Amino acid sequence: MNFYWLEMVGTAAFAITAVLAVTSRGIDLFGVAVLAIITAIGGGTLRDLILGVPVFWSNDLDYIWVALGAGIIAFVTQHHFTWKILHKLVLYFDGLGAALFSVYAADKVWGLEFGLPLAPVILGIVTGIGGGLIRDMLSGRPTLLVTRELYAIPIMIGCVFYVLIMSYFPTYREPALLGCILFSFALRSAAITWNLEIPHWLTSENKTNS
Amino acid sequence: MNFYWLEMVGTAAFAITAVLAVTSRGIDLFGVAVLAIITAIGGGTLRDLILGVPVFWSNDLDYIWVALGAGIIAFVTQHHFTWKILHKLVLYFDGLGAALFSVYAADKVWGLEFGLPLAPVILGIVTGIGGGLIRDMLSGRPTLLVTRELYAIPIMIGCVFYVLIMSYFPTYREPALLGCILFSFALRSAAITWNLEIPHWLTSENKTNS
Amino acid sequence: MNFYWLEMVGTAAFAITAVLAVTSRGIDLFGVAVLAIITAIGGGTLRDLILGVPVFWSNDLDYIWVALGAGIIAFVTQHHFTWKILHKLVLYFDGLGAALFSVYAADKVWGLEFGLPLAPVILGIVTGIGGGLIRDMLSGRPTLLVTRELYAIPIMIGCVFYVLIMSYFPTYREPALLGCILFSFALRSAAITWNLEIPHWLTSENKTNS
Repeated sequence: MNFYWLEMVGTAAFAITAVLAVTSRGIDLFGVAVLAIITAIGGGTLRDLILGVPVFWSNDLDYIWVALGAGIIAFVTQHHFTWKILHKLVLYFDGLGAALFSVYAADKVWGLEFGLPLAPVILGIVTGIGGGLIRDMLSGRPTLLVTRELYAIPIMIGCVFYVLIMSYFPTYREPALLGCILFSFALRSAAITWNLEIPHWLTSENKTNS
Repeated sequence: MNFYWLEMVGTAAFAITAVLAVTSRGIDLFGVAVLAIITAIGGGTLRDLILGVPVFWSNDLDYIWVALGAGIIAFVTQHHFTWKILHKLVLYFDGLGAALFSVYAADKVWGLEFGLPLAPVILGIVTGIGGGLIRDMLSGRPTLLVTRELYAIPIMIGCVFYVLIMSYFPTYREPALLGCILFSFALRSAAITWNLEIPHWLTSENKTNS
Repeated sequence: MNFYWLEMVGTAAFAITAVLAVTSRGIDLFGVAVLAIITAIGGGTLRDLILGVPVFWSNDLDYIWVALGAGIIAFVTQHHFTWKILHKLVLYFDGLGAALFSVYAADKVWGLEFGLPLAPVILGIVTGIGGGLIRDMLSGRPTLLVTRELYAIPIMIGCVFYVLIMSYFPTYREPALLGCILFSFALRSAAITWNLEIPHWLTSENKTNS
């Protein structure tokens, strides 16, 4: 299955959300370009370093060109994104990219038989959220690990289901890929549409300081 | 020498201290699990990436399962850790883990003859404190590099002594390992017991603006 | 061309600027030594991990010894650096180091034919600013990506020019190296001398909330 165009759409969405996340901080075009690229390719780069394989973008620079272009366009046109519908549309495409890249990553790790059955889930999550975590640390924002945003859990569920299906029905790789990407994206879409947050009983109680 | 069970105890202690460090920030169970795992295996992962060898947990997922399990249990039972004796006990086990993992790491680097004689000390320190540094950056806490906690210096001393012994008495590997782990742990235990801090004359003077 | 002594001067300058950047935070000698080393070798280490080649300092520990020594000396003598001329001199040497290391890195990536033509620029920038970014995240300072300092753009321009020259005049490697290093350094020197900042029209408008 070839999702090349969807991957580019997801890459662009990652870069655009990066710009929207940091522009309120008075950042310049250079910083924006760096953070857009890091958000788009940081997670997959971390995954490939841990796997010990060549980083994915060294053979296909389109990922970086698209991230750079989308980041610059988003920077120049940022005032349009105050338009709610456009902003939400970017969030959905970002969610699609996250679902796609993370289940894809689980599939890549599974194919390499690296640290089964746990590593495909862990590196799927790293791929989906790693770039955003690095962006937030570099720009001084709280990372999503300390917010209540329902972003990473749909990614984790998609990767867990992929590993479960491949463990018991290893011949169903293509439907497993497609189904887990769609299911993960559906969960994230629900969170965007209804502003769902992580339930309180799953959150640490003593939230008084900080 | 096989310290397998001690390694698992140290891994669990790393994960539990991670949970205790971040729960005051209103973090959810997913974030806790991620930070527990990163704290437990982050330092060793960095070391292996720099060494250019496969990451240690890819062949033995027990490290991750133990970190995940200990992290979740600590999250659910966190109110018990307000009990001072239990909290201190976790600190001692955390110190034991740090001593064990860092001297072990120095030994691994020494065995690979990588960047002798400096790299075993540097990568020993990376292994002992790297996971905690990443956790603190991800959760927005000040890292131990900017606090006066006496945590990293016992690790450094243990690794320096290990390198000195191996340089002059290379046949005494096993007693060197055991002695340096115990000595490093004893220093850290003293710091925990008597609340020792880094002395003022070793600290930058102009502390006015934070 | 052999710039060994200039590289050591640049390494020392990176370590000294690291110390000057963090001492106002009441940091101790151990933290200073760690941050000096990370600032000096962090960027090149990231570059080598992404390239999949052995880290450069594993075969030549001089980089680390010089960073360690310069960092400790700067810590002990830090009150002298309130002397404006000395402080500015360090900034110029730091700029020279950044120009040298980044164009050198672009040359290394070009020689490996890794991700041409974009990766030499990206990894040149990573080499020049990566160590400083890690230092700032570890010490809780705003990274240069969110300040208006004109630091990274001269680095980028030097690397872009190097790639352009090598693309069209591949036989002129040595003059390209020398010229791009000098040009990048000249731009950074101008920024230091006249306190130039990134122009406002290249900066995000809505700077109200920090």
